[in-house]
Amino acid sequence: MASATAASVHLKATFCSKVQTSSSNVVRRQAGVTRLHSPIADGRAASRVGGSESNFVGTALKAGYRLSVATTKAGRREATVMAALTQDQLKEQAAFKAVEYVKSGMVLGLGTGSTAAFAVARIGELLKKGELKDIVGVPTSKRTAEQAASLNIPLSVLDDHPVIDLAIDGSDEVDPDLNLVKGRGGALLREKMVEKASKKFVVIVDETKLVDGLGGSKLAMPVEIVQFCWKYNLQRLENLPEVKGCTAKLRMEGDKPYVTDNSNYIVDLYFEEPIKDAHAASEAILALEGVVDHGLFLDMATVVIIAGSNGIEVREK
Amino acid sequence: MASATAASVHLKATFCSKVQTSSSNVVRRQAGVTRLHSPIADGRAASRVGGSESNFVGTALKAGYRLSVATTKAGRREATVMAALTQDQLKEQAAFKAVEYVKSGMVLGLGTGSTAAFAVARIGELLKKGELKDIVGVPTSKRTAEQAASLNIPLSVLDDHPVIDLAIDGSDEVDPDLNLVKGRGGALLREKMVEKASKKFVVIVDETKLVDGLGGSKLAMPVEIVQFCWKYNLQRLENLPEVKGCTAKLRMEGDKPYVTDNSNYIVDLYFEEPIKDAHAASEAILALEGVVDHGLFLDMATVVIIAGSNGIEVREK
Repeated sequence: MASATAASVHLKATFCSKVQTSSSNVVRRQAGVTRLHSPIADGRAASRVGGSESNFVGTALKAGYRLSVATTKAGRREATVMAALTQDQLKEQAAFKAVEYVKSGMVLGLGTGSTAAFAVARIGELLKKGELKDIVGVPTSKRTAEQAASLNIPLSVLDDHPVIDLAIDGSDEVDPDLNLVKGRGGALLREKMVEKASKKFVVIVDETKLVDGLGGSKLAMPVEIVQFCWKYNLQRLENLPEVKGCTAKLRMEGDKPYVTDNSNYIVDLYFEEPIKDAHAASEAILALEGVVDHGLFLDMATVVIIAGSNGIEVREK
Repeated sequence: MASATAASVHLKATFCSKVQTSSSNVVRRQAGVTRLHSPIADGRAASRVGGSESNFVGTALKAGYRLSVATTKAGRREATVMAALTQDQLKEQAAFKAVEYVKSGMVLGLGTGSTAAFAVARIGELLKKGELKDIVGVPTSKRTAEQAASLNIPLSVLDDHPVIDLAIDGSDEVDPDLNLVKGRGGALLREKMVEKASKKFVVIVDETKLVDGLGGSKLAMPVEIVQFCWKYNLQRLENLPEVKGCTAKLRMEGDKPYVTDNSNYIVDLYFEEPIKDAHAASEAILALEGVVDHGLFLDMATVVIIAGSNGIEVREK
């Protein structure tokens, strides 16, 4: 897995590649380096820039790596190349950390989205290795159900497992109180049903999802509404004092409205300023007839795991 | 319209038939009598039982009519037959009274169900006569839209007419505070959307719909839920402390679940005792993820028109 071998302040947050720029141009690749997409991290590419230390360093810096070069005890010049993790790698790190909360015998809520998919994959891996046993997964979307089934994770539904031990899911925004905006992927209602039914809800994000206030990312805060008179409800949403200043747009899929798993539409709210009082906004939105649910997940997360350039941070409620 | 001509304590609430049981067996039928379905109210049938006063009276009583027999100034024996109004006739009376609130130029919310249908028919009649003009109707169901269209009532939707002057609709229950249970017909969400958008909401019922507390009729209080994990939500509804003691059943249509206009299911709640705090119940039900709306219409009715054996009663908020 993604542990680094080179000593570095970025130990937790980076995959590292140790490259010897000695005259022999031997390049040793270490664990994790295959995940680096730039040619500098590839042995053959590195050897192409080898020979001259200054060439190598110049090329590495240009490619976005940070590196330190020092003389080893053996008298060789050795470069430690540190690649900033991609967003996917950060997500995977957070997901792996989250799966540490999973114990054998648990009923698990399985989230939806690119981050949650890493957690589902990890659970499948640990089941296969026998490190986890007797897991039942309750997926939050058809997509997640398919992924979990392909990994031989036994699946169930809320109808049969109304109490869930632990849910793991990503989030689109996390505020300082661990309140969330979720549902840009369109599965907000099923996610909320499963995660509300969970004793513990572990949220996994990369640091780009942190906001000072919900809505602060200027990306969509979704509201699921019935199709009937959607224009009327879109207008009513935009006019609510509790979300004053937002812009409401019907989510499209090509030239047709996007339709949720529940045959509803999604109206996305965009904010210039963060929502002042998310609880008030939640209540006002839910009070509109025809609103099925929204992407504000308040007072739900019990743990938030944040992967960033400074490593993994765990915040608990 | 349904005004009675015979003097009677049931003047407002009855259609009357004056039947002479003189030796000539002349039976005069008066306004409204053609609505009576029993043979006694029909001239020819009455004449069949005529001849003998005791025969006539016996037959009338047996058929469920009340009657008084007196000697007129002219010395003839004359029976005044009072038929208790059928439930449909009571509904029609209330509906006609409600339409008195309609003025030309109004945007009207058109309810759904057997009582509302009488109001829609009356509006169509007044439009045709030219007694009403420039009406726009916003129907609460496909069924009502079809009826209104057949009567040439111009139709619109909330999207184009977000503010409605007056809505008229029936109700399944009315409590002393004019709070309602609606939606046994399955159109609860669209009804609630339209009626919440109305400046004035006139409810029309016959007296059988009056209850001391909502749920008190022991008939269904409907909750519209998404199809996903309906068993889970049915169980959650039944377990809510705010509706303690209720029985929850999925509404069926033949051997399949009933599906609303919005592609959702309906769970009907049945109460042994009326709901103690309808506002608390409303909030608790709406707070469940997957609940779209419910049949408690609280603080919405501005006028309730009740047709009963003692005439028409109008209650205003």
